[in-house]
Order: sequence, then structure tokens, then C-alpha cells
Amino acid sequence: MALTHYPVVNKNGETIASAVTNLDLHDISRVAKTYGVQAFYVVTPLTDQKFLVERIVSHWTRGAGASYNPKRGEALALINIKDTLTDVLDHINSKGKGFPKTVVTCARSINRSIGYATFRKMLASGNPYLLVFGTAWGLSNSYIDEVDFVLEPIEGNSEYNHLAVRSAAAIILDRLMGRER
Amino acid sequence: MALTHYPVVNKNGETIASAVTNLDLHDISRVAKTYGVQAFYVVTPLTDQKFLVERIVSHWTRGAGASYNPKRGEALALINIKDTLTDVLDHINSKGKGFPKTVVTCARSINRSIGYATFRKMLASGNPYLLVFGTAWGLSNSYIDEVDFVLEPIEGNSEYNHLAVRSAAAIILDRLMGRER
Repeated sequence: MALTHYPVVNKNGETIASAVTNLDLHDISRVAKTYGVQAFYVVTPLTDQKFLVERIVSHWTRGAGASYNPKRGEALALINIKDTLTDVLDHINSKGKGFPKTVVTCARSINRSIGYATFRKMLASGNPYLLVFGTAWGLSNSYIDEVDFVLEPIEGNSEYNHLAVRSAAAIILDRLMGRER
Repeated sequence: MALTHYPVVNKNGETIASAVTNLDLHDISRVAKTYGVQAFYVVTPLTDQKFLVERIVSHWTRGAGASYNPKRGEALALINIKDTLTDVLDHINSKGKGFPKTVVTCARSINRSIGYATFRKMLASGNPYLLVFGTAWGLSNSYIDEVDFVLEPIEGNSEYNHLAVRSAAAIILDRLMGRER
């Protein structure tokens, strides 16, 4: 899976590079580890933000955090920092698994979106997929237009549709990778 | 639902009052609003912590945050601050719905725990339930011993079992209150 800080849109629909949020790294890597995700890519082209992510990860995997709470480091060790989503695809391909199909999550309803049961079956096939989450006000439309699949939005049981990406990632991984109930 | 900062345990199993985390309030109230939860109780007996929660909530419901992002205030308006879980039960009872049964979430497996499908059916009965989440290293055993029901832990598909309470709340509300898929 990938958490993307560029290209995303701000409140006014302008394409921006968003800032990395510390708790996104912690919460999403812990969810990824719980559900057996193979890698968690943090995507940002900004040098200072890449440095920040590297410092956070190393604190918990090799620094003082590693002895304070080793379970945290196990999760954060899933993080790979990349400049672009293209670099992520290349990295996965370099592992000998081929280029993954890209599946983006989006809070807006998109015509061609696929459901959770459908994607769950696709995952069971063993082919590689990259599940992409956006930050800020979501992935830019021009990026969404180019991906292979769009996952349908999470519907709760109200008209309110404004989850944190941390919460969306938790719910989506449970729906896709959780044990059958 | 309630997010409890006392009585919880720390890393060493000692009962403590934990500090309130800003993003717990944001993420969990947004999840609660999405899934139609009626109230989100933040439980802490500490005066400074109650003041902090009140300041955060008022910023988004009545202060500058209300105009910057009104959707955030809609969610945070679900928050009620209470000293103890007994106060929460009294408050719900004072609304004329009777005392709710308490159901706690716990990452540890407890003998008498109930499953998600079972609790989903109980909720459909229309009787009031209070779903209780702990912070820090979880609710104290002495508190868990006294509640009506314990919900079974979230199992991902790995042996890793260390989700943030924010993530656990998102997954559990989706399992209990999400539209049937």
C-alpha cells in the first residue's frame, strides 16, 4: 500500500504536496502489519519531509523507541520512502513480482469503481496490487484517471463522509484482508 | 460510545489516568458521525484534561475551526466530557433511554467475549448499549470484570495485535454499524 502526499488536492481543489503527519505513519503501519500487508510506501517528493519520515522510522526501528516499544518498530519497519508513485511501481517490480495493478481509494463516488468483495477476490488470485491512499483532500483527479482500478467509497450509515485517512485505511484493510466472519 | 482515560493500565500493568490525545477526539468522532453513533463520551477525571478537551471541541464547533472546516465541528459536537463511566451511564439514563448495557473492547482474548455478529443483532433490538474503548495499554481488568459484555478482539491475518485505539474504533464501528455487504 502507499500513502501519497503528492499529487493531492487542498480544500480549494488545487494540486499540492501535503505535509507528512506523524500519526499517519504509526497508525497505518500498525494496521498494515496487522493485516499482513507486504510494504507500506510513504510517497513525498519533498526532501525535508523524506528526512522527517526517515527520522521517525529510525527512532522506532533502531533508536530509543526500539527498546521502549519494540512492537512499534515491527510495524514502522514496513515503511519505504519514495519520491513518486512511479518509483513505488519500479521498486515492487524490482522485487521480481512484476508491476502491480494500482487500486486507489477515494471518498468520492467514481463511475468505474469496484466493490470490496470484487477486490478481495482479485487479491486472492496472488497477483500484486498497490493500494493507494491520498492525504489532504484526496488524490488529484488527473492521477485517479490514470490508475487501473478505483475502490468504492466507504459508506457508513449516515450522510457524513469525512473520515481521516487513518480510519479509512483501517476499515478498508479489515474489509479486504480480515478473516471471513 | 466512550473513550476512557481512567481506569486504564500502563505498559507495566499499573492503573493510571492517561493523557488525552487530540487526534483520538478527531478521528473517533468522525468515525462515530459516519456510523450514526448517538454520543461520544470522553472520560477523564483530570481537570486540566477536561479543560483541554473542551477547548478543542469549542474551537471546531464555535471558534475559528467552525468556519474553516464546518464538517469537523459536526463530528466533534458528538463529544460529551464526563469524569467517570458511572457518570456516562447516568447521563444516558437521564435522556429517558434507561441505563445502557456496557460492552467493552479489549485487545486481549477474554473467555466470555461475544462476537461481532452477535453484538450487531443485539444493537438491532433497539436497546441502548454503551461501547467502551480504553486508551494507553487498555482498560483495567477490575473494570472489565464488572461490565455486561466484552467484545472479541480484532484479529487481522497476522500474529501482530497492536492497533491504535483510533484504528480499532474505526474497524469495530464498521463491523457493527456498517451497511451489510
